[in-house]
Amino acid sequence: MASVRNMSDVDDAGPVRTFELPVTDRVLYGAGAAGRAREEARRMGMTRPLILASGTLATTTRVVDDLADGLGAAGVFHEVPPHVPRRTVLAVAERYREVGADGLVSLGGGSPIDCAKGVALCLSEGVDREQSLAEYRIRYRYPGPPQIPALTGRPPHHLALSTTLSGAEFTSIAGITDTERGAKDLYSADVLCPGVVILDPELAVFTPRDLWLSSGVRAIDHIVEGVYSARHTPVTDAVLLEALSILAADLLPSADEPLDLGRRGNCQVAAWMAIMHLRNVSTGLSHGLGHQLGALLGVPHGVTSCILLPHAMDFNRPVTAGRQALLAPALGVDVHGLDELGAAAAVADCIRSLLAQMGVPTRLSEIGVERSHFEAIVEEAMNDMILAGNPRAVSIVDALALLEAAY
Amino acid sequence: MASVRNMSDVDDAGPVRTFELPVTDRVLYGAGAAGRAREEARRMGMTRPLILASGTLATTTRVVDDLADGLGAAGVFHEVPPHVPRRTVLAVAERYREVGADGLVSLGGGSPIDCAKGVALCLSEGVDREQSLAEYRIRYRYPGPPQIPALTGRPPHHLALSTTLSGAEFTSIAGITDTERGAKDLYSADVLCPGVVILDPELAVFTPRDLWLSSGVRAIDHIVEGVYSARHTPVTDAVLLEALSILAADLLPSADEPLDLGRRGNCQVAAWMAIMHLRNVSTGLSHGLGHQLGALLGVPHGVTSCILLPHAMDFNRPVTAGRQALLAPALGVDVHGLDELGAAAAVADCIRSLLAQMGVPTRLSEIGVERSHFEAIVEEAMNDMILAGNPRAVSIVDALALLEAAY
Repeated sequence: MASVRNMSDVDDAGPVRTFELPVTDRVLYGAGAAGRAREEARRMGMTRPLILASGTLATTTRVVDDLADGLGAAGVFHEVPPHVPRRTVLAVAERYREVGADGLVSLGGGSPIDCAKGVALCLSEGVDREQSLAEYRIRYRYPGPPQIPALTGRPPHHLALSTTLSGAEFTSIAGITDTERGAKDLYSADVLCPGVVILDPELAVFTPRDLWLSSGVRAIDHIVEGVYSARHTPVTDAVLLEALSILAADLLPSADEPLDLGRRGNCQVAAWMAIMHLRNVSTGLSHGLGHQLGALLGVPHGVTSCILLPHAMDFNRPVTAGRQALLAPALGVDVHGLDELGAAAAVADCIRSLLAQMGVPTRLSEIGVERSHFEAIVEEAMNDMILAGNPRAVSIVDALALLEAAY
Repeated sequence: MASVRNMSDVDDAGPVRTFELPVTDRVLYGAGAAGRAREEARRMGMTRPLILASGTLATTTRVVDDLADGLGAAGVFHEVPPHVPRRTVLAVAERYREVGADGLVSLGGGSPIDCAKGVALCLSEGVDREQSLAEYRIRYRYPGPPQIPALTGRPPHHLALSTTLSGAEFTSIAGITDTERGAKDLYSADVLCPGVVILDPELAVFTPRDLWLSSGVRAIDHIVEGVYSARHTPVTDAVLLEALSILAADLLPSADEPLDLGRRGNCQVAAWMAIMHLRNVSTGLSHGLGHQLGALLGVPHGVTSCILLPHAMDFNRPVTAGRQALLAPALGVDVHGLDELGAAAAVADCIRSLLAQMGVPTRLSEIGVERSHFEAIVEEAMNDMILAGNPRAVSIVDALALLEAAY
């Protein structure tokens, strides 16, 4: 049984603030950065890593084979289902032990990256059964505090090459699904964050257009909920607003011109900026409901952001209008003559219009969610520690009303 | 003899960029943050640290005694001369061993903080003589590359409480003076960076007005040279420009009203932002000449920035006008109708006018520098690796001309 600590070190927005710097050691970015993967892996002490790769990249391109050859990989696993079932994590950990790998390299979107974090946890703590893994999940009931089991071992090093804009490679949190409960559990420890991240737009040209766009909206969701967080800081504001400027300029054009490596690379850097300091603020309702929508119904998180973010902005506007208005310049929204509430509403309109231009799903009914699912989504969301960070208190009734508005 | 590595991992501004995240683990800021020092020290494993404190704080306030009591300090050393002579570093390391301390706490400005880094190096590597310490200094001749001796041991933990705006507490570089050569040597290793930094405006109310202002100009120097660096990045631009906005609004008023803890704390956060990502860009001529001006003639670095920065901006303007123009909005400079060169010149005028309002020294002749010193300053500056980062190539003649312009 894992020992448990409370999150007592997370202060609220009182006069004394604690700012945790990123756990990531270094980021290599730009066209051709993947060519440095071998050098970085060797620097990290890996001579025969296990690769966890996106299934699409592995089966439709030479990218994964080339990387495996370059790194002298001990093996490649490319069958991680979305939302990462617990049994997959255990199977990969078993594979790692069998082949005698000496590090983890993940390549793709959130699923292989989060799976690698889960594998690192299993290897650190000697976990080889689903029930032992479950003991390490974060336990939480609104309004908290969360209980986060501490790790005692040393996980292997993890190098991540990311091909979407969701930012999983920059967090120490893994979302792993309990398929029996149909719920996504969170696991977290600083040592689970990849030490080195490579953002190479040449790898990201294969990312499907819909995934590129919706994961970019995920990054926008990080920015919006980070800026209107009650725990906002000057550091997070600066980086988040600049990231929004970049995404507003380059996200849609980069989807239309996948071979424009400049814009694609800019979006990767912006997605990194959107998440790099996020653990110092709190995200809110869009993230909290989105987690469980994803876990229960298999909706990708980018898509949950496309659908929920504008409604979360509406719900939070009465208490965060001034904060939401700060987003206007980055989006090019003219707020001349508007008061804070008007400016904030104009910002939400702009986000809605951006989503419409992208052609991403914006209603729950479009993606097969039924009203009969609402209760289960809300029930699990109230167990998701993320909800406690929302700037406006959320009741079960509020959450149900938001889902109805987004239906 | 220390083993030596080249700085091959510092790439230039090619298509693939390497971004090193800060080595600092956490920053506590805001009025009252010093009250958390004991908790942080214990978390870092210190039960009887040695305190290196500013002489002024130790002899004119109760702050140092209170901190020593709170931490259960094994000893207090408060006689670090400016620019940190090598022999002081060795004396403190000896004291650390004698009293059986288990960590370092520095309190004050750049001198006690850099001295503590030097002490950490001595303890890590078993150094107990000046000549052995000198073997760890960075060796450099323009245009490089620098040779940075690697550390092989484990230095003690270091908690820093900073009372100026120079940012020494956020770097892994220590400037330590060879009094025989009259030159400031640089020492650098990631593990020398304080792990935890506390920025408490209540401690900083005792900082002399001149030092507060000139160290704030040092932070502005970090920002300006970071923004016009050829290695600028979206992350550094975002954080540096926001830091400049804060300093433009709060630096002068905070000097006039030392008990305005809000503004004073804002300046501390801005000074942190000014330096937090600085190792990913390069600073230039103002920093490079300033180092040696400080070492040879005992001029505080804040003062060297007050004098040299406008002239470095002038020298670099032909190749960095667009970059310098980016500083205009943060400074509130109206550049309507101006081209890039005109906007950049208006920015430099604004900095000059800000310096004049502060009443800080702006000419070498005001601080006792003689023309006969110029040659020695430039000779040592050409051995300072920082100069290689200047965006415009610098000859000995250029550097002499700059000093003449600043005389």
